[in-house]
Amino acid sequence: MSTYTLHYWPEIPGRGEYVRLAFEAAGEPYTDDTDVGALTKLVMSASVAGHPPHFAPPVLELASPASSAKRAKTREGQSAPEGSTQSVFISQTPAILAYLAPKLGLAGDVEGDSEEERELRRARVNQLVLTALDLSNETHDVHHPIASSLYYEDQKEEAKRRAEDFRKNRIPKFFQYFEEVLTSNPAKSHRLVGSTTTTADLVLFQVVDGLQYAFPRLLASFEKAGKYPALFEATKSVASEEKLKAYLASSRRRKYGMGLYRHYEELDGDA
Amino acid sequence: MSTYTLHYWPEIPGRGEYVRLAFEAAGEPYTDDTDVGALTKLVMSASVAGHPPHFAPPVLELASPASSAKRAKTREGQSAPEGSTQSVFISQTPAILAYLAPKLGLAGDVEGDSEEERELRRARVNQLVLTALDLSNETHDVHHPIASSLYYEDQKEEAKRRAEDFRKNRIPKFFQYFEEVLTSNPAKSHRLVGSTTTTADLVLFQVVDGLQYAFPRLLASFEKAGKYPALFEATKSVASEEKLKAYLASSRRRKYGMGLYRHYEELDGDA
Repeated sequence: MSTYTLHYWPEIPGRGEYVRLAFEAAGEPYTDDTDVGALTKLVMSASVAGHPPHFAPPVLELASPASSAKRAKTREGQSAPEGSTQSVFISQTPAILAYLAPKLGLAGDVEGDSEEERELRRARVNQLVLTALDLSNETHDVHHPIASSLYYEDQKEEAKRRAEDFRKNRIPKFFQYFEEVLTSNPAKSHRLVGSTTTTADLVLFQVVDGLQYAFPRLLASFEKAGKYPALFEATKSVASEEKLKAYLASSRRRKYGMGLYRHYEELDGDA
Repeated sequence: MSTYTLHYWPEIPGRGEYVRLAFEAAGEPYTDDTDVGALTKLVMSASVAGHPPHFAPPVLELASPASSAKRAKTREGQSAPEGSTQSVFISQTPAILAYLAPKLGLAGDVEGDSEEERELRRARVNQLVLTALDLSNETHDVHHPIASSLYYEDQKEEAKRRAEDFRKNRIPKFFQYFEEVLTSNPAKSHRLVGSTTTTADLVLFQVVDGLQYAFPRLLASFEKAGKYPALFEATKSVASEEKLKAYLASSRRRKYGMGLYRHYEELDGDA
């Protein structure tokens, strides 16, 4: 019985992948729950997940010691003890990652740091996670610039216009930023903060990987032109970590499709 | 000399206001720096702000004890000591708020909590801050659905289409969510978590206030119809806190204009 259960939509990697990568990189066991019925109940309603309810997945469930014991007993055919503590739930990708990072050794903590130094380093990692997730959100909005509730086909013209700006201005701005973060890291470690892998590196890897799927021509043209060398080097370095390499080659790694990262030929430009 | 300096664009409240409200609600002194030249240097370049650089304002500057001493000495006409510690900078609104909340008594901490309980409560506050900021971001994207780099006038048709979905689906979904958070809070305190004001309450107040400016007809129609009573009650309750009331009536509180929250008659619907 793992301590952590990740509730997310089935099939697509989506925003759940940012959390999944943290567990995989740390070698932490987790349950990947894609039951849509259970997920729907967790979202918007306080009656199942307790207070506060959740706006959208991913939702992380933490088994409290008492509720783990309860499940174990239930498996043995005994009834759950009265008044046992319930599971606790957290949603919002950056909140989940900020909570998990120190527990999984992905917060950039350095031995011998003062409390204040540790806090500041965590704030920096959080800052970089949030910026990479901003790029992730903008990637989604390129194919859905008008409304998430409409089909792509119903906002195709607007998507084309937004994609042009995204390719020309937004991706280059974000990539240049992360290039600067990597090259100004005094540790010169192919990592964003210090010399160990943090949640920020994992999120950045996933965003670059997702963009390579969604905008293959554009991303290939960057690499061919020798642009953002530190960024692409870091992405490869993260993907070659032993645990991540095994995960990425496994059937647990989901294929891109009709989720956050989508490939539409007409949005990829002529590069 | 205050410990905290907030670097943000002049005139507009924008995303800087979420940080400003935290200082004001807590009665914590802060320096409000709107020097555009200094701000521009802080963003995208590691040479001024140290590692990592910052993608966009707001940027929070923390005077380290050593650099405060240095400034005090400089004021007295002496030169700064060699090798004195530099200021430290944090960007990304949710990262700044997560860092400040416990220091300003806005993290929902409850006396007697275990470390784990405190952490979980902070994660909940963070989750709600992030969800309210998602609504803030969507509000911006309504008047800039194609590109931040283009004028509103160059994406007016797309904005009209997006505004329709925003009024009909998105605002109601977010408001219903926060209504559920407020009504399911066991403390029944007009606050989102527990019974004290947290950064989540402040962000939600600012989003509702900004939407009342940007979509006055729509928001008035909600109140007239008796929709989201707990949300509007909470907003009023936060605004009537002594320190916030004084701040909101002061000249420090900036007027809305051409920032994140904009009023365009044609986007407000016929409600």
